[in-house]
Amino acid sequence: MSYFPILQIKIGRKMSKGNKRSYIREILDVIDENTISFAGGLPDERLFPLEEIQNASAIVLKNRKALQYSSSRGLIGLRQKIADIYTEKLGFKTSADEILITSGSQQAFDIIVKSLDKKNVIIEQPSYIGAIGAFRSLNMKIDSFKYISELPSKLNSSNILYAISDFQNPSTNSYNSIEREILINIINRKKSFFIEDGAYTFLNFDNEYNIPISKYCERAFHLGSFSKIVAPGLRIGWIRANRKLIDNLLVVKESLDLHTSTLNQMILDEYLNSHDLFSHIKKLNIDYRMKMNFMADCLEKYIPSFKFNRPKGGMFIYGSFNTNSMKLAEEAMLKGIAFVPAEVFYLNKKTNEARLNFTNSSFEDIEKGVRILASIIDKSEVSKESVWLSLFKKYFKAN
Amino acid sequence: MSYFPILQIKIGRKMSKGNKRSYIREILDVIDENTISFAGGLPDERLFPLEEIQNASAIVLKNRKALQYSSSRGLIGLRQKIADIYTEKLGFKTSADEILITSGSQQAFDIIVKSLDKKNVIIEQPSYIGAIGAFRSLNMKIDSFKYISELPSKLNSSNILYAISDFQNPSTNSYNSIEREILINIINRKKSFFIEDGAYTFLNFDNEYNIPISKYCERAFHLGSFSKIVAPGLRIGWIRANRKLIDNLLVVKESLDLHTSTLNQMILDEYLNSHDLFSHIKKLNIDYRMKMNFMADCLEKYIPSFKFNRPKGGMFIYGSFNTNSMKLAEEAMLKGIAFVPAEVFYLNKKTNEARLNFTNSSFEDIEKGVRILASIIDKSEVSKESVWLSLFKKYFKAN
Repeated sequence: MSYFPILQIKIGRKMSKGNKRSYIREILDVIDENTISFAGGLPDERLFPLEEIQNASAIVLKNRKALQYSSSRGLIGLRQKIADIYTEKLGFKTSADEILITSGSQQAFDIIVKSLDKKNVIIEQPSYIGAIGAFRSLNMKIDSFKYISELPSKLNSSNILYAISDFQNPSTNSYNSIEREILINIINRKKSFFIEDGAYTFLNFDNEYNIPISKYCERAFHLGSFSKIVAPGLRIGWIRANRKLIDNLLVVKESLDLHTSTLNQMILDEYLNSHDLFSHIKKLNIDYRMKMNFMADCLEKYIPSFKFNRPKGGMFIYGSFNTNSMKLAEEAMLKGIAFVPAEVFYLNKKTNEARLNFTNSSFEDIEKGVRILASIIDKSEVSKESVWLSLFKKYFKAN
Repeated sequence: MSYFPILQIKIGRKMSKGNKRSYIREILDVIDENTISFAGGLPDERLFPLEEIQNASAIVLKNRKALQYSSSRGLIGLRQKIADIYTEKLGFKTSADEILITSGSQQAFDIIVKSLDKKNVIIEQPSYIGAIGAFRSLNMKIDSFKYISELPSKLNSSNILYAISDFQNPSTNSYNSIEREILINIINRKKSFFIEDGAYTFLNFDNEYNIPISKYCERAFHLGSFSKIVAPGLRIGWIRANRKLIDNLLVVKESLDLHTSTLNQMILDEYLNSHDLFSHIKKLNIDYRMKMNFMADCLEKYIPSFKFNRPKGGMFIYGSFNTNSMKLAEEAMLKGIAFVPAEVFYLNKKTNEARLNFTNSSFEDIEKGVRILASIIDKSEVSKESVWLSLFKKYFKAN
């Protein structure tokens, strides 16, 4: 991974009333329809396959079983389809018995940690705020790493490594093939458990999907989700692991919430029966690449001091302001613009870095939001020519 | 509560691969469509408001927001409706801010325990197997009580009391008004946290609902669920608590699964907008009382040695065989009949007691299943006159 900040801090926060809410979810609670939000990780709802889900829902709701309790593992049809995606699209041979359906990918952290007897987890820095929250609420001791070269001295058979291998949230980085090989070697040698988060794997703008690192690790859990590629409101994710590990996860899953919504699993299963998921994903990737480039153009034009690389996938632009990003975020909120200062993605670090989501705003709002951010930074209103107008022809007339 | 077995055992099982799956969920996995199952707690799917849910689903799926991420607290419209049920039906004044939506009521155990800093829980014996599983997977030390009079010496400010106040699962008992008063007094005096499970509160065959004990306790969580009164496949439950406690729960909820399915919350909200939930519940109670009485008649006729009281609500008949119920359950499974030997509802106790569900089988299957159980007990085929035929007129011609 090309980008890694410096500080490493051990934190083992006590589970209790002392835990804080996620900065992002708190922002999501206070923003209203007038806010331009670059804060969340919300997919573009205009791209949801709404009509297809309507049809799938109408079909499955002819069956009373859609409203009944169902198996803790998840529905066999859906598990088989997910297994087939691993086998056919990710080069990772998988059977339905190696899939456990979860209520969103987020739930996987809780289930995996409880199924093991480990108290230590090593995460990337920066890392996914939802994973940090889940580990904290389970009283895990959390350590982090900047360079892979630190891992041999940190990893051992009594801890868990957590990493997002493709288009990491928030950094947008992916591990390259050399880094993957090194990681596989270390994980196997140290006999660590490995949680590999594949939430953004399919949001590759070039539609080329990496083979999961987990394929080559014995003690690995690979997490996936329909939230980014179909719709998050259904709350359907999964864990891929070997059968022995899945059996242990199953005990926890049924104690946690019995099973994931039968109706939503059947809707997804029916949707996948009658539609080509990967045609849909290709459409998402075309749209998201366009929006990413548009936000990048706006940032380069209005806030040239913001340092970032254009991501090759995912839902975010990650970079560094030349000013305190936490303070900037607070001022921006007062002007109706939300983004995430990257401090919240670290265990304990001040930073000027920030994460900006581009999938959940219109082109107009992206430009408007970036201009307002620029005006706060410049302390003067910006009146440069609109990127939106000048790029309109380029992005739309060409099609 | 009139029925309480004797043994009390302290168990603090280590969270790890050592935990077992729930006996009931394992049974549910192996039964097929030919099995007559008195084992699960499945509602009668013929009573699901299928058409109403179809319509609600069609309406809400016109709105893209139904497929988007949503608030960790749950949708305000649905929370308000649940709050109104407390205020109007249970005599317990409640605002929307005092409700947290959960992914089924089962999830409440995990969220509540993690939000507190307590390691001990006291449960009734027998108790709900899903609660025992949840407490175990959180490494809680579990103690149990037989008589309320034991509670003063067991309860203190460092532990949690868990009880199902109406139509307890599995015992079918409810606390009477004197017991409720004593419980309130002890809980407040000992400053214990109290988890009151109201899963069966509305399945009162007389449609008279008790005021929750929680109304009079400062540190109380009241659990509710749409699983028994609308449909379990939606996985929508809730926790009712004061605002300070809800804020602590919220931190855990968002770390656990971000939020409960937006689609399913909107479907339920829309269903409640356009239908009278309590008319539906009254229909359920008429049907369930009829089935309960039918199963009771069958048990009295074919297995007169089975000792039980007819319950006044809920989904189960609970009683005692004059033979080892675990062994009987195993033999019954071989003949295609499933029920739950009550050993699994205790922390550590052998018993001849058993739980039989009457909501999920047809009248024909109830009689057939009870006759086969009788034949196993008698070690000879039973050929008495059919209860079904003799009661058909009584139950159906009268209407």
